[in-house]
Amino acid sequence: MQLLRLGEPGAERPFARTANSANSAEGVLHDLSPLTADIDGAFLASDGLARARAAVEAGELPTAAVSGQRIGPPIARPGKVVCVGLNYRRHAEETGAPIPAEPVLFMKAPDVVVGPNDPVLIPRGSTATDWEVELGVVIGRTARYLDSPADALAHVAGYAVSHDVTERAYQFERGGTWDKGKSCENFNPLGPWLVPADEVPDPQDLALSLSVNGVVRQRSTTKDMIFTVAEVVHYISQFMVLRPGDLINTGTPEGVALGQPEPKPYLRTGDVVELGIDGLGTQRQAVEPA
Amino acid sequence: MQLLRLGEPGAERPFARTANSANSAEGVLHDLSPLTADIDGAFLASDGLARARAAVEAGELPTAAVSGQRIGPPIARPGKVVCVGLNYRRHAEETGAPIPAEPVLFMKAPDVVVGPNDPVLIPRGSTATDWEVELGVVIGRTARYLDSPADALAHVAGYAVSHDVTERAYQFERGGTWDKGKSCENFNPLGPWLVPADEVPDPQDLALSLSVNGVVRQRSTTKDMIFTVAEVVHYISQFMVLRPGDLINTGTPEGVALGQPEPKPYLRTGDVVELGIDGLGTQRQAVEPA
Repeated sequence: MQLLRLGEPGAERPFARTANSANSAEGVLHDLSPLTADIDGAFLASDGLARARAAVEAGELPTAAVSGQRIGPPIARPGKVVCVGLNYRRHAEETGAPIPAEPVLFMKAPDVVVGPNDPVLIPRGSTATDWEVELGVVIGRTARYLDSPADALAHVAGYAVSHDVTERAYQFERGGTWDKGKSCENFNPLGPWLVPADEVPDPQDLALSLSVNGVVRQRSTTKDMIFTVAEVVHYISQFMVLRPGDLINTGTPEGVALGQPEPKPYLRTGDVVELGIDGLGTQRQAVEPA
Repeated sequence: MQLLRLGEPGAERPFARTANSANSAEGVLHDLSPLTADIDGAFLASDGLARARAAVEAGELPTAAVSGQRIGPPIARPGKVVCVGLNYRRHAEETGAPIPAEPVLFMKAPDVVVGPNDPVLIPRGSTATDWEVELGVVIGRTARYLDSPADALAHVAGYAVSHDVTERAYQFERGGTWDKGKSCENFNPLGPWLVPADEVPDPQDLALSLSVNGVVRQRSTTKDMIFTVAEVVHYISQFMVLRPGDLINTGTPEGVALGQPEPKPYLRTGDVVELGIDGLGTQRQAVEPA
């Protein structure tokens, strides 16, 4: 079962989807409206995923064929988006950064989370808009000063493909923190689905990939993470309260434009970006001017 | 007229307040429930402040005496909190940082915004929790790639006292960006009121002050800002979309604990912090362990 939201921006409606595989284009949609108005923190915190599964299995929900509607992000606007930087060994190496001794954190503005196939917008004046496929982690239970990483995964509702779009010149050359290059409009496509954590046997054994115009640019596995999902959730909970519906972007593997030889192949209007994680589905974005 | 929200966390109700002065403890409360369920982005974007004022002046709203209820933050949880660092000349000097050539930006997690008299919580393991009185700017109209600073103030709904609590060791000594030291639980008391922009004659002529245990630590004026409110709003709009209900913290003046001689007087359990801005009201926080 996967959870998703269909409809125009701001008017998405919640569905569950059953299919032979999460990466299959075929599937049956189950309307979650009888259970909840949205896939949000309150729904996740009240055991919503288990209730959705029970209702699907009992055949209690209206079904529909997969439609041509826009796919929104699979969760309502997160309370916050916390990101881990330089969390893959080979990515840290390609950027010339040392391997971090503890997780590097930064934030994205929650309102840049959009649907998986919405356009990537090149900010006006941008010269260095870059791609970053990432494993997105959606929090299901409040995590505050967790005792150990062993407690962490019980606080995860599920996983989704996340695209941490980044403007490198804004990130590194405009003074201050990385945040200027991380929160531009539409800079976080998420989805297509939220896959419940209990349907992801091992979050540290997922293959990620990203291509631009059909050329594979990133191909790695979450095995290369420096800090595991459990370590990241535990770590963040020492600095801030993670709440149901919050999103964590767990870092990107090697292969970003920043890591390429000059002239670096930053995104340009007309490019098409495709990315995915095995078992979590795929995204496809047209690159357009903001 | 000032706008405020009264009630327990998550259950605040909206009111307008009329008083001889915004810093007066006396005043009359006007229940805004007939107009709106909350003081949020949708209310602000739909000319809510003008509608509230008209309803108050027409005597259309139920009134109540000022009560002993908890004061919440004067706006519902912001979509994002964007902060400007090192934006006062004498504060940049005290931290040893060069005067920034362009605004330094960072983010706070929106869920750390709390009421003006809620406790400041010392994070577990913290050794360097610091104070920062700031002018908070609440956005009223979407600001996206504004043409010039001259357009900016028309996008501001109003102003509020904001306390940008900061853990300096987490900010500077734990790797990566400043964000680890900025989003701990309760780290952004806001209020007591939202003062409509048209009742603040000049946002660059406001006196700010903060004391700890009765000792004045910060006393300055927004005249010392390096980048004005108008410049900051225009600047941020080049990097991200500012939406109604978003909060901007515009930087703190000199006098933070970080700028003091050793041993620096960082906050400790039992301390009392009082801060305020002329015309925008005052806050009082007890310092407690998280």
